[in-house]
Amino acid sequence: MTATIRLGELAEFLGATLRGSPEKEITGLATLQEAGPAQLSFLANPQYRKYLVDCQAAAVLLKAADAEGFIGDALVVADPYLSYAKASHLFDPKPKAAGGIHPSAVIAPDAQVDPSASIGAFAVIESGARIGAGVTVGAHCFIGARCEIGAGGWLAPRVTLYHDVRIGQRVVIQSGAVIGGEGFGFANSKGVWHKIAQVGGVLIGDDVEIGVNTAVDRGALADTVIGNGVKLDNQIQIAHNVQIGDHTAMAACVGISGSTRIGKHCMLAGGVGLVGHIDICDNVFITGMTMVTHSITEPGAYSSGTAMQPAAEWRKSAARLRKIDDMARRIKQLEKRVGDVTPGGNASSEG
Amino acid sequence: MTATIRLGELAEFLGATLRGSPEKEITGLATLQEAGPAQLSFLANPQYRKYLVDCQAAAVLLKAADAEGFIGDALVVADPYLSYAKASHLFDPKPKAAGGIHPSAVIAPDAQVDPSASIGAFAVIESGARIGAGVTVGAHCFIGARCEIGAGGWLAPRVTLYHDVRIGQRVVIQSGAVIGGEGFGFANSKGVWHKIAQVGGVLIGDDVEIGVNTAVDRGALADTVIGNGVKLDNQIQIAHNVQIGDHTAMAACVGISGSTRIGKHCMLAGGVGLVGHIDICDNVFITGMTMVTHSITEPGAYSSGTAMQPAAEWRKSAARLRKIDDMARRIKQLEKRVGDVTPGGNASSEG
Amino acid sequence: MTATIRLGELAEFLGATLRGSPEKEITGLATLQEAGPAQLSFLANPQYRKYLVDCQAAAVLLKAADAEGFIGDALVVADPYLSYAKASHLFDPKPKAAGGIHPSAVIAPDAQVDPSASIGAFAVIESGARIGAGVTVGAHCFIGARCEIGAGGWLAPRVTLYHDVRIGQRVVIQSGAVIGGEGFGFANSKGVWHKIAQVGGVLIGDDVEIGVNTAVDRGALADTVIGNGVKLDNQIQIAHNVQIGDHTAMAACVGISGSTRIGKHCMLAGGVGLVGHIDICDNVFITGMTMVTHSITEPGAYSSGTAMQPAAEWRKSAARLRKIDDMARRIKQLEKRVGDVTPGGNASSEG
Repeated sequence: MTATIRLGELAEFLGATLRGSPEKEITGLATLQEAGPAQLSFLANPQYRKYLVDCQAAAVLLKAADAEGFIGDALVVADPYLSYAKASHLFDPKPKAAGGIHPSAVIAPDAQVDPSASIGAFAVIESGARIGAGVTVGAHCFIGARCEIGAGGWLAPRVTLYHDVRIGQRVVIQSGAVIGGEGFGFANSKGVWHKIAQVGGVLIGDDVEIGVNTAVDRGALADTVIGNGVKLDNQIQIAHNVQIGDHTAMAACVGISGSTRIGKHCMLAGGVGLVGHIDICDNVFITGMTMVTHSITEPGAYSSGTAMQPAAEWRKSAARLRKIDDMARRIKQLEKRVGDVTPGGNASSEG
Repeated sequence: MTATIRLGELAEFLGATLRGSPEKEITGLATLQEAGPAQLSFLANPQYRKYLVDCQAAAVLLKAADAEGFIGDALVVADPYLSYAKASHLFDPKPKAAGGIHPSAVIAPDAQVDPSASIGAFAVIESGARIGAGVTVGAHCFIGARCEIGAGGWLAPRVTLYHDVRIGQRVVIQSGAVIGGEGFGFANSKGVWHKIAQVGGVLIGDDVEIGVNTAVDRGALADTVIGNGVKLDNQIQIAHNVQIGDHTAMAACVGISGSTRIGKHCMLAGGVGLVGHIDICDNVFITGMTMVTHSITEPGAYSSGTAMQPAAEWRKSAARLRKIDDMARRIKQLEKRVGDVTPGGNASSEG
Repeated sequence: MTATIRLGELAEFLGATLRGSPEKEITGLATLQEAGPAQLSFLANPQYRKYLVDCQAAAVLLKAADAEGFIGDALVVADPYLSYAKASHLFDPKPKAAGGIHPSAVIAPDAQVDPSASIGAFAVIESGARIGAGVTVGAHCFIGARCEIGAGGWLAPRVTLYHDVRIGQRVVIQSGAVIGGEGFGFANSKGVWHKIAQVGGVLIGDDVEIGVNTAVDRGALADTVIGNGVKLDNQIQIAHNVQIGDHTAMAACVGISGSTRIGKHCMLAGGVGLVGHIDICDNVFITGMTMVTHSITEPGAYSSGTAMQPAAEWRKSAARLRKIDDMARRIKQLEKRVGDVTPGGNASSEG
């Protein structure tokens, strides 16, 4: 299952300057510490430079500056991590899907499947759906009515698209993801919830990735919109009518409430939650498990939460925190009283 | 795919007072800002009243008070949002499932499927299950042994019911939901976990909705119970033996630990977590991402967490918070010392 | 659907001392309060001792000390909860899978399925996979290329294993779980994310349990590793290259970021989040919804977050907390000023 590629071919593929034998055969990838004599490694983080000395790799992807002191074979590149990303696909053991339509798949007569697409076992493709060139639809996928999947898409086994989900080119969707589910729309009348049909769809751009068991709800009226190049990790919840700008990335377990808009090039760390109907501008970074309760209008990093402590100390902190309003008032009172007995005191005690 | 309904018919369906042409044709729904001349809109939130002036909609659902200053066609109703909810289903592009049993479905000989039910491709229905009148079971659903699904239920593609899950009437379950999974029950002996069979089932009332990829575990001994009219959003976790009262709603990513009981008409915002074995009374509202560590006996709104700050400021706050117990002690000491030097001071420094 | 077992047989099975009639027939399990005259109950938590008096159970599993004052039939054991765990499987109504391979399953010619294994309807087993003795693969499961499932494993309906996932013996995986998904690996170049192929696999030990809709990503280079006896509840996210030590348990909705290592015998309560690239030592307990942002090197309990308050009070606390840095500075200033006017004051105000 391992590919074999010669170092010279790799250099050409990556546009790298080769220092070493072009005939050397590479069969895989590994870290600097773990790489064996047939594996390619890379140095991206300067912190790992110390591992170069004892590195057993066949060759190392690195920058010119790092190559100087390195005696092994090297592929010198401008951005070793990006080059590693490119090279990684050459050694990916992921099986390539068999071409054509599996005989067990159930495909509506009026669905259009490009002849170069691959449709897996037990897939269901409903009326009016269109599957583009080179698309892989994994086993057990359900593609709802009138969905469109652009050229080069790859759907893992067991992905569900409800009806009217339109997906751009080269989109990757991992197993268990559900796109186009009926968002949480109910009107409350006298304490009883009445369902609101979710008549919008989902519009997903090019080069998007959607992780395992992630949910993207359809719009209530207009579409939910995911921009180009957006990367969503696993177990994420995107509610109805959310809009996500191009090239924004979200780590696992993020939850975005309905109608919230997120700008371009944002990064949301794991477990972040956003309330609904707010706007996040471009280039915002939100640290892990932050609760975002209002719009953000300035680029930058934002956080909430408290630092971890040993549980016994934390219990004291948490109890005190409930009294912080009282503490603040007592400080103010102290300042007043101290001001009364010290010369010029009150002048400096406020704000 | 668009329905066409005349305004007069809509007025009759909604019990609305029509102001305008009964023959005008409506083909869809949209917001006040986006509605075109063949679309119905609605004014529920007074904040959006300003959009009435330029509204292009064919007609607007609104209250009598708002109708006065509006020159366009109107459907005057008591509760525009509720009327919108009712009207929305008329324009829902969701495909209606084909009747009958798909030939690929695998159905146990002793399962009972009502002739008016629809069973999708590759569905599996196990021994003793009973599927009621008008129920839709989507493609790739798995209905375990002895499950019951009451009349009018709708299961999206790929829903799993383990054995002995009993579901009331008109229940909607979105894709990826798993009902009746084996809860997290283990006995620890000398550091090793031993599995406890989960012999209870799940009992779900009428008019319940369960969201995408939500999990409801079966009971350890007795059943896990979801009351009538409960609405669960996506990615929710309901552990074994939880009981949820009628008409309670939970937004996405909520987690409820084992044996906790939640009252009626509660609302849990997104990302809320509840520890196990506690009781929440009726009419409780819990704000987003709150950690609930003890029972709640009074109706009202509850919260935990900290407000978001720019990350640099947050780091300072978080560091200080770890010292809050020390701060409190220093305030107390200051009060004592200030009391020693100011007349009558100590009397007011406590409490 | 109920098993019937005589009390004498139960005593023998559990190695218990029987006090009562060996011929009494037991048909199920229930709590002390709910058990009827044909059900077995147990007393593990001393808090429930008060329910013994009115207990209607056929017999109760309890310790010798608790048996003294109890007049009903009893099975006296050293660890009643562990004995209950063992007995529970005798009364589990979970259907046993039919033996053999369901005719609808799609199995690669070179996959190896043990003759004693059970393969459900619409299961897909890909090239080179190996299914061990007595394994149950539920309906709609997808077993990727070269996966291995050790003897005695039980996969609920609809479990996805991507390629190259190796699983030990007696492993239980609940519905919707996805093992081996492509982790969140991207290299950012000029604001655009480039996918990194995830060439590692997943290695899972013996006696592991993985909950509903839980995701375990494959390694980026080396394998993601789950130790023996690890128990993962529902809706958990395990990122690429995480390593989890033997007998560690995690409650629902936990998220572990990439390359983090967790020791043995740890317990993570619900909703806990760990950042990437940290180490947690053995025997650590982390309370619910804690955010873990750095390594833990000492066994013990750890927490973060704030206590729940009524929302109105919480808003005040949260607002004050944003000013805590200012409060701390004002306390320090007060101490200095008070020190100036009280004898010997400054000496004690620091530290």
